[in-house]
Amino acid sequence: MRILIGNHIDPSIRERGDMRAWTQRLLWFARPGDLLVLCCEPDNAFCDYVLAHTGVKRSELTILVAPAGAWGDRLLDPASLTDPAFVKTVRAALDTVGGATGVSEVFALWPSASVSHFAASLGIADRFPGAAFFAQGGGEIGNNKANFRALAAAAGVPILPGRVCRSRAEAVNATRELLASSGSGAVVVKQAHNGAGVGNQLLVRDPQLAVDHVGARHLHHLAPGEDGITAYWDQRWTWASGGGRWPVVIETFAPGADAVYSEHYATDTGTQPTEMGRLFYVGRRLSHQVVPLDRVSDRVRAALLDGGTRLAEAYRAFGYRGHLSADALVLPDQSVVFTEVNAQVSGSLHIYQQIAHRVVDVAATPRRQVVEYHVPPTWAVPDFTAFLTALDETGLAYDPATRTGVIVSMPAIPLAPGAPAQFVFCIAYDPATGYEDTFARLGERFQTLPATAIDASVHVGHAPVSFSS
Amino acid sequence: MRILIGNHIDPSIRERGDMRAWTQRLLWFARPGDLLVLCCEPDNAFCDYVLAHTGVKRSELTILVAPAGAWGDRLLDPASLTDPAFVKTVRAALDTVGGATGVSEVFALWPSASVSHFAASLGIADRFPGAAFFAQGGGEIGNNKANFRALAAAAGVPILPGRVCRSRAEAVNATRELLASSGSGAVVVKQAHNGAGVGNQLLVRDPQLAVDHVGARHLHHLAPGEDGITAYWDQRWTWASGGGRWPVVIETFAPGADAVYSEHYATDTGTQPTEMGRLFYVGRRLSHQVVPLDRVSDRVRAALLDGGTRLAEAYRAFGYRGHLSADALVLPDQSVVFTEVNAQVSGSLHIYQQIAHRVVDVAATPRRQVVEYHVPPTWAVPDFTAFLTALDETGLAYDPATRTGVIVSMPAIPLAPGAPAQFVFCIAYDPATGYEDTFARLGERFQTLPATAIDASVHVGHAPVSFSS
Repeated sequence: MRILIGNHIDPSIRERGDMRAWTQRLLWFARPGDLLVLCCEPDNAFCDYVLAHTGVKRSELTILVAPAGAWGDRLLDPASLTDPAFVKTVRAALDTVGGATGVSEVFALWPSASVSHFAASLGIADRFPGAAFFAQGGGEIGNNKANFRALAAAAGVPILPGRVCRSRAEAVNATRELLASSGSGAVVVKQAHNGAGVGNQLLVRDPQLAVDHVGARHLHHLAPGEDGITAYWDQRWTWASGGGRWPVVIETFAPGADAVYSEHYATDTGTQPTEMGRLFYVGRRLSHQVVPLDRVSDRVRAALLDGGTRLAEAYRAFGYRGHLSADALVLPDQSVVFTEVNAQVSGSLHIYQQIAHRVVDVAATPRRQVVEYHVPPTWAVPDFTAFLTALDETGLAYDPATRTGVIVSMPAIPLAPGAPAQFVFCIAYDPATGYEDTFARLGERFQTLPATAIDASVHVGHAPVSFSS
Repeated sequence: MRILIGNHIDPSIRERGDMRAWTQRLLWFARPGDLLVLCCEPDNAFCDYVLAHTGVKRSELTILVAPAGAWGDRLLDPASLTDPAFVKTVRAALDTVGGATGVSEVFALWPSASVSHFAASLGIADRFPGAAFFAQGGGEIGNNKANFRALAAAAGVPILPGRVCRSRAEAVNATRELLASSGSGAVVVKQAHNGAGVGNQLLVRDPQLAVDHVGARHLHHLAPGEDGITAYWDQRWTWASGGGRWPVVIETFAPGADAVYSEHYATDTGTQPTEMGRLFYVGRRLSHQVVPLDRVSDRVRAALLDGGTRLAEAYRAFGYRGHLSADALVLPDQSVVFTEVNAQVSGSLHIYQQIAHRVVDVAATPRRQVVEYHVPPTWAVPDFTAFLTALDETGLAYDPATRTGVIVSMPAIPLAPGAPAQFVFCIAYDPATGYEDTFARLGERFQTLPATAIDASVHVGHAPVSFSS
């Protein structure tokens, strides 16, 4: 059996707010015998729903809730994992299945030092791959977009022209130089620690530039000349650097690119590719992703695999162990450039490893694909039950016989009483048919706002939520 | 010919103040034909003095002063290196010796992105080892004491028990746990970016603990219990984390240890050890260092070489190129634990590579050793001339015939009008005789204060100066 930890990036690095729903995707990974640690009581309806798809019985799992720490039950407090009473509870739970020696692996959504300490407190640090590295804060090294650029450059993996800046003055210089040499007259500013484009801001000189499909939640039209650059950084350096905490990445913007990724798994002995996929941004907001990767040439696929493998090996070389995702862009000339590595359990692993390969078995005949959608900000879904009811009424629920249909990936916990639910859901589909019709039929049911009503840079809901890493 | 850059850690990471004197140690590295870039006009007396020892003619060197930037002539502004007018000046200087293609290497005291950009602007990025990595901020990755702990743990190199903390709450927990498990009842707090013990603070429960020899400039006697820990961190978290910019390292304190180091050079094809030495702290202030390393057992020497080599290989694996120094402690039980890596030109390279091996040729018969002393804070040396005069009058100046005597390592620039000069100087000596007598004779001449007059945590002089990395 394994211990699965439903944590998220350490709040001391980036405090994400309410992650109760997103971290419960942990349930997709559960296998009979596993012990799960969550920050909150599991959503029973969602738990039953997931286990009905994976075929695991609730009685075959032990689900423990870590003691409420600084964030209540909204987010797992890393310190709670080594709370003496909690460690005692875990030990007692393990004793019923033969003790800690029976644990084959400690698996965590984020490679926190606290997981190393937790494993050590149980005497099973060796079951958490990379425990010694992560115990000393290695998780942060592998999840920093500035470090990525240096590591990728050293590994000879293609990246876009860009700079890593540690001061406002450096940012002004870098912006000026990159704008001058960029064909698009645009650059992307990236926070070192953020995800799904929420920490990215696109700076454009030309208001007509097509940017709707870009993974940069924020958009800024630069005023002309040096003043426009200086004014931007006067206003945004604090945001971009997290109050001076992190280096800031500035890259030239590549218009008309497709966003793809290659995921890998690193062990003590090597790395192996696990899956590739494609991300779609709509209104500069992460909209959906498709696995396995389709509609690319063999050359693009080979370049993505090659660069992803070299990055995985580079991250392995400095100590990282576990799953990692190498994000890339396919440029209009079909070259592949890499944009970041997320050295953690990504927002894709549950889709391809569990839903696509385990539940749907996409590689079987007839072949299937899986797309995972974020509920668009233009929809209003009252709650989980309403969504399942709609699936039943429309016949869109996942059908094991056809291996097509909708599977909800995470619980729908309203962020405020009466607020619409935000969550993600998968559509398993026949590649010949596509997923657009299914999505459109759900839209007919739930869309209440026109797309133009949404400002991409504003979070929907009452709290800043981004589900992805 | 080579281009040598007299820079220091990028001020955007850590602003060091007036580094005019310390960066002029660059002159020791000069060979005929080299082009040197300094932040200020060279100290002519010191320049002539160095060249008289190395046998290089001033006419064989080109010395350029980078344009004054944000720090005037006190510190090289990284942006100055790519100032168009300066690049033009460098090109013109290179043209007199056959152009940039004749440059065999770009060598910098600190691996700044600005050096990569400078080399690229001359079309010779390939002459700066690791240029692509450093261009993306790689220099910071390799010089962060928190990253060190993770990388060393991953490489299986022995380190002291400790933690990397990203918040005050984590620091409080780590301090409590490490104090509880530490035999000494003491821990060392380390800023991620600092050097020579200036960024270290020793927290002790027992005021009687012997700590004079320790490389931790600051000392704090903890009040009893949890309150003492909390009070400390309420007061010092901002200092330790650089205002939240960096992770903070907390390690158990190892009493009675000796400070040693192993230096290495990393290239595209491998690493090689360059030298080992020993550091001596007096009043918790870096006092002097001896090369080559003596008075250690073969077992200690082998452990230091082995750990240093593994660290050098680990740093090489993620992209670092150039000189690096692995610092370690020899514990009373003769085990060797590593404490940090400085992946830059250290404060030791000029001592062993240039003064010990090039000028003194310590390995020749009869064998010699070299110690480099900081002018103690209890001395008052009026200026460089006064020191040289004293050397002449006492017969303590370096004598090429005996290969013993005093060699001043850096210029003596008073930090304020009338303030005593602070600098470092070497003593080449016969190992059978030692260096103590020479040092004592200089002390008779220059000591004006008793040792007890100096508070270790206070910088001497009017500006915070630490010469070492």
